[in-house]
Amino acid sequence: MRRWNGWGDDTIDFPLQEDALHFLRERVGQGIAMADAAFEDVCNRVPPSRLRPHRLVDISAPVRLRNGLGQSMQDWLRLRYGVPGPLPDGVAFPESSEQVRELLDFAARHDAAVIPYGGGTSVVGHLGAPAGARPVLTINLSRLNRLLDFDPDAQLATFGAGVAGPELEAQLRARGYTLGHFPQSFEYSTLGGWIVTRSSGQQSLRYGRIEQLFAGGRMETPQGTLHIPAFPASAAGIDLRELVLGSEGRIGILTEATVRISRLPQSDSFHAVFFPGWREAETALRHIAQARIPLSMLRLSNPVETMTTLRLAGNKGLIGLLERYLSLRGCAHGKCLLLMGASGDRLPVQQAIGNALRIARNHHGVHAGEAIGRKWKANRFRNVYLRNALWGRGYAVDTVETAIDWLRVQPTMHAIEQAAAQVLHAEGERVHAYTHLSHIYPQGASVYSTFVYRLTGNFNTDFARWRRLKAAVSEAIVASGGTISHQHGVGTDHAPYLHAEKGELGIAAMRQVFRHFDPQGLMNPGKLTGACNEEATDVARKLA
Amino acid sequence: MRRWNGWGDDTIDFPLQEDALHFLRERVGQGIAMADAAFEDVCNRVPPSRLRPHRLVDISAPVRLRNGLGQSMQDWLRLRYGVPGPLPDGVAFPESSEQVRELLDFAARHDAAVIPYGGGTSVVGHLGAPAGARPVLTINLSRLNRLLDFDPDAQLATFGAGVAGPELEAQLRARGYTLGHFPQSFEYSTLGGWIVTRSSGQQSLRYGRIEQLFAGGRMETPQGTLHIPAFPASAAGIDLRELVLGSEGRIGILTEATVRISRLPQSDSFHAVFFPGWREAETALRHIAQARIPLSMLRLSNPVETMTTLRLAGNKGLIGLLERYLSLRGCAHGKCLLLMGASGDRLPVQQAIGNALRIARNHHGVHAGEAIGRKWKANRFRNVYLRNALWGRGYAVDTVETAIDWLRVQPTMHAIEQAAAQVLHAEGERVHAYTHLSHIYPQGASVYSTFVYRLTGNFNTDFARWRRLKAAVSEAIVASGGTISHQHGVGTDHAPYLHAEKGELGIAAMRQVFRHFDPQGLMNPGKLTGACNEEATDVARKLA
Repeated sequence: MRRWNGWGDDTIDFPLQEDALHFLRERVGQGIAMADAAFEDVCNRVPPSRLRPHRLVDISAPVRLRNGLGQSMQDWLRLRYGVPGPLPDGVAFPESSEQVRELLDFAARHDAAVIPYGGGTSVVGHLGAPAGARPVLTINLSRLNRLLDFDPDAQLATFGAGVAGPELEAQLRARGYTLGHFPQSFEYSTLGGWIVTRSSGQQSLRYGRIEQLFAGGRMETPQGTLHIPAFPASAAGIDLRELVLGSEGRIGILTEATVRISRLPQSDSFHAVFFPGWREAETALRHIAQARIPLSMLRLSNPVETMTTLRLAGNKGLIGLLERYLSLRGCAHGKCLLLMGASGDRLPVQQAIGNALRIARNHHGVHAGEAIGRKWKANRFRNVYLRNALWGRGYAVDTVETAIDWLRVQPTMHAIEQAAAQVLHAEGERVHAYTHLSHIYPQGASVYSTFVYRLTGNFNTDFARWRRLKAAVSEAIVASGGTISHQHGVGTDHAPYLHAEKGELGIAAMRQVFRHFDPQGLMNPGKLTGACNEEATDVARKLA
Repeated sequence: MRRWNGWGDDTIDFPLQEDALHFLRERVGQGIAMADAAFEDVCNRVPPSRLRPHRLVDISAPVRLRNGLGQSMQDWLRLRYGVPGPLPDGVAFPESSEQVRELLDFAARHDAAVIPYGGGTSVVGHLGAPAGARPVLTINLSRLNRLLDFDPDAQLATFGAGVAGPELEAQLRARGYTLGHFPQSFEYSTLGGWIVTRSSGQQSLRYGRIEQLFAGGRMETPQGTLHIPAFPASAAGIDLRELVLGSEGRIGILTEATVRISRLPQSDSFHAVFFPGWREAETALRHIAQARIPLSMLRLSNPVETMTTLRLAGNKGLIGLLERYLSLRGCAHGKCLLLMGASGDRLPVQQAIGNALRIARNHHGVHAGEAIGRKWKANRFRNVYLRNALWGRGYAVDTVETAIDWLRVQPTMHAIEQAAAQVLHAEGERVHAYTHLSHIYPQGASVYSTFVYRLTGNFNTDFARWRRLKAAVSEAIVASGGTISHQHGVGTDHAPYLHAEKGELGIAAMRQVFRHFDPQGLMNPGKLTGACNEEATDVARKLA
């Protein structure tokens, strides 16, 4: 069964090896044993529902608790410590667009706030219930998961928008196709969730971000149904898909989505290349990106992430051999690991990898074959389970990400890691911070940083510490000129920083769009543009 | 000097060869000699300006006439026959964003409608002045043409948005870069115009549509200045660029635009491939597109366009030889010409062309080398001058375009050409109609049809005939399920058909966005979503 207070299925465990624990003790100190709150105890404290009865709405405490939060650090702290905060008053599981309409009408009649819930994997607070007197209805879309239409000629497939990654890919794979959208949350996150949060998959270099994959669909809004036809391209005015993308539940509920699919590739390979240092690696990466070589993935780890990856890989003997070889080839302390993937027919894949390796070698890159890439691919949705094991040993893991132009990639990475270190230092703690560039563009790259640090066993202390950490790294991003999110979205956690990039006029335009579709303000209130103008003004003042 | 009533510079002429005239006489009959209205006569009939004086506004009749219309068939008929209809009351030529602001404030104070004018190349009626009591100010942006910022690391360049294609490319070329955006209107159309009408260049397969090239910018709106930062990518809420793209002057004036540029390619080659018939050609094209081969262009002419191209190519002897060779290889009557381009470093270009030719050969494609492609490239901005020569001989040329899924490409092409033929047949006239697929996607293609038919020498007759023709082909597009425009935009000519694809809720959302930035309704009133709800409802009823 799905864990109620952690990642993934509770039959799947990735315990930490002694080596890894030793490494962590070295980097941030000995963790304490954590005692999680019990599900039943938390359920017993859930207040009575304030919703009128409705045949589609479940108001039981266990269901409300299981659908009340996501996977942000704030959500984890709340659930693990048993302090969930406001929860929805009921959860509906509609099976059709018509039932979604019925639920929206029900919410409108009773002035209930509505929270659309896909796979529950948001890491930025899209799913929390707002505090206040208004009842809250969460609409879980997991039963809108059917393949509704399939057009191999146009390479289009239409799904219920609540379909999760594995179900979607299984249905396409059976027909010889793939969507090719593989975010780390793939095992649970949903098509609709990807769209309304502007998700980006690990192989977006080939398949495109979800913005490119989303061709059209159907959205139920409080003002009516929005049908968006799927054209190959159009110059006809405002592209309505763009009002849905990134709307984070504020204008309605996407119930059907038509996506652009591809034939399953003959070949899907990942090669590892090591560079002596960051400078060479980043330069090679930029040149590969700007040569527009048709790869599927480019992912560059900085020296600390590279070291961490090798230390946690297990198989000490083999890694030792590899490191001795790399050292002879000039890649020793400070080396950086680049993973490059290509997908498609065998010949173009060979050509693309060959062309990219040629550029890498010009910058002292050392090709290390496909073994590391194969291992990465096999574990790419598994690493996230480590978060459970780390928590059990008293360690928190949080991540933050942005995208920025090439010249500012390295300074931004540095600023983010330093901001985290400073916050933890002030608390007398160390942070193990490392970064990779996860998505690469001719213009720049996404910067994805991970922080591992110790928990205290006290909710208030850990919560306050996380808030300080989150504020410091977010401010570092904004001050560096990066977007507040490249792939996770805004939710509540990033809402105070959105004003810096959209401006007052832009934020007001977004609100105007929301009001058009949702004049009563029912839909996911407080998310994205926030209820938090004051906080935003504070941030703006601080950064000015 | 720029022609006031036709395409391009008046020192450039492409007279029709006797062969071509013979061909046309054969297809649609003998044309009459046309007598154009004289510039001075039309100027003398321009009514006095209703605008208050402003130091930046020129109210002279010649300037108002020269900036009052675009290049749509309606505009041509009006200018050639000397019946221009409503013209702006004045034209301003601002040199900075601040002057644009000043002009918007001036317009707001005097409740003047504002029409942004880029290169004056719109073919769908973006530029006409609305009738009515309100004075009209056209803002010509051609002096906002400087390169403002250049970042080779991020491959970004910021220009004044009024920069025209050749000036833009010249400034980039001097630095070793290109934008790679080459619509047929390239010689006059502007960066800002491309953006606000969602333009697509001939090599968009490599460089992207303008949507992908436009990274950020500055827009002056009646409500204030909208600054859009240029991130490599972002998941932060609604993408404000998307409110600017396709806005067609309704929310403000784009004064600066940051675009994604590329290194000048080592190689920029175009190959011709002939197919025995449409079916083989279209199938090959679809497979090439869906294999995602990194080409720069795919452009497929149907049999009539292929025949027309060969008949008008001049050099009868060489063409005769080619046709005998093609005939031996199975491409005779009904053959179709595919042009495929690739740009970039020499090796990847060779690989891409090689991979595409392999697929073409599987579908009986016959490679005909690079000569035809070179000729096409040399003339790609010249063919449009033929419109002048044809008019002089009594022939009208109009074009229409859409984009649609693969399965409906052929039926849509047929429906469009048939609709035109029927309208002209009812008038006792013939039409020479031909089509090419100009932009190719894995999902489908754009369908671009050209109509050549005879003029009568009478404005009212020709105007009524064109309206019937335009209505018939537009209705055929909507009935086929295509978008009303793939690359030309909406303006006034397509406004009645926009409702069919956006729906009432979508149109209302667009209007809401316009109202947000322009509560007084100053900006390009009547364009895009139209003042013409009734006409739209008529269309919807007809098609239902």
